[in-house]
Amino acid sequence: MTKKDVIVLKDLLGTNKQIAAKIRQELRSRGILCVNLLSSPGSGKTTLLEGLADRLKSPYRIAVIEGDIETERDAERIRAKGVPAWQITTGGACHLEAKMVGKVLPGVPGDIDFLFIENVGNLVCPAGFDLGEGLRCVLLSAPEGDDKPKKYPQAFLTADVLILTKSDLVPFLPFDPDKAAAEALSMNPRLRVFRVSALKGEGMDELAVFFADFLAKERAGRA
Amino acid sequence: MTKKDVIVLKDLLGTNKQIAAKIRQELRSRGILCVNLLSSPGSGKTTLLEGLADRLKSPYRIAVIEGDIETERDAERIRAKGVPAWQITTGGACHLEAKMVGKVLPGVPGDIDFLFIENVGNLVCPAGFDLGEGLRCVLLSAPEGDDKPKKYPQAFLTADVLILTKSDLVPFLPFDPDKAAAEALSMNPRLRVFRVSALKGEGMDELAVFFADFLAKERAGRA
Repeated sequence: MTKKDVIVLKDLLGTNKQIAAKIRQELRSRGILCVNLLSSPGSGKTTLLEGLADRLKSPYRIAVIEGDIETERDAERIRAKGVPAWQITTGGACHLEAKMVGKVLPGVPGDIDFLFIENVGNLVCPAGFDLGEGLRCVLLSAPEGDDKPKKYPQAFLTADVLILTKSDLVPFLPFDPDKAAAEALSMNPRLRVFRVSALKGEGMDELAVFFADFLAKERAGRA
Repeated sequence: MTKKDVIVLKDLLGTNKQIAAKIRQELRSRGILCVNLLSSPGSGKTTLLEGLADRLKSPYRIAVIEGDIETERDAERIRAKGVPAWQITTGGACHLEAKMVGKVLPGVPGDIDFLFIENVGNLVCPAGFDLGEGLRCVLLSAPEGDDKPKKYPQAFLTADVLILTKSDLVPFLPFDPDKAAAEALSMNPRLRVFRVSALKGEGMDELAVFFADFLAKERAGRA
């Protein structure tokens, strides 16, 4: 990187941080828990959201913002669950930024409980951009391999929750969930770790309960 | 993106293109086929290279450049196959650039046949950066889903070869290899498509033969 590149990047991150702080304050004041889901393409973010929608949409009100480079495919899958979804297509950009979320927010109902944001599928770039979320979740699917946390550190260092997905495939893979979790925890001991198969439903009730409890604690903390 | 960001990006891509053209010319003049492997984290790039090393290292001489954000893990796996490997750790950057490859090249023996470059695991950013390769291969693993080509278009539009990996997992997944291939081909009809399981060895001989044939044709074309 040249000196000019570094200055541009610093400006970009500084502006993003300010916008994210405003979004966080606004959502908190409304009692909305915003969850930013971050992972490689195909780690199962949308399938996880479909499973969470089934479990949380009653008694809670949820909404989803979908980030993708192209297509409305993910938003359509979420809408098919009866959950309102907004698709942001970045048209090439490799991550969501707070200002993109800020543009969508005025259209999102103010009385929801959860706002899930599915970031662009990318384990690298989205980690650098705060979207104003209250919880950041990084997904790591069994087929990706248990060596990923140290190879892609920033996502694991900045997350609050690690969700090991596609656990139904573990018997067919050279993947050790304990090793993956231990490596991530050695980098970031405050991570909450969950193992799920969204496709088979394993571990999904526990994850939904975790989000519901977290929301309740957040609201109690503000009370 | 602001106007300033766009100018910086254009400068960066322009400079990269010039360096890549020099690398391409140099490698071609030496009769070396350079292959750039591009995919999400955990699509199986390193396992594919291990399988290709077993099949190509005799009678060919091969070398590997590994791109990662952190760790020497991938280079160590390749060296364990008796193949020389150079690890580039980008320290945060989400893709390799031609100048990074250019810095490593003087140390790579001039009499090799194949130079494989494993890019940083990222289906987005590496697609924009020519490394001077003679062949660009995009990997899509079965667990990632057959909806990815149109969601992450640039990698599929700029590749010469599509390698559908982890085919041994297809029976356990909602993944249709024909659908994935058809979608990618609808975007880029010149793609050569292969289906492999590097772990089980399926399709790997055919892929190795393809690379050997391509090298022979390249050399004959220059003769």
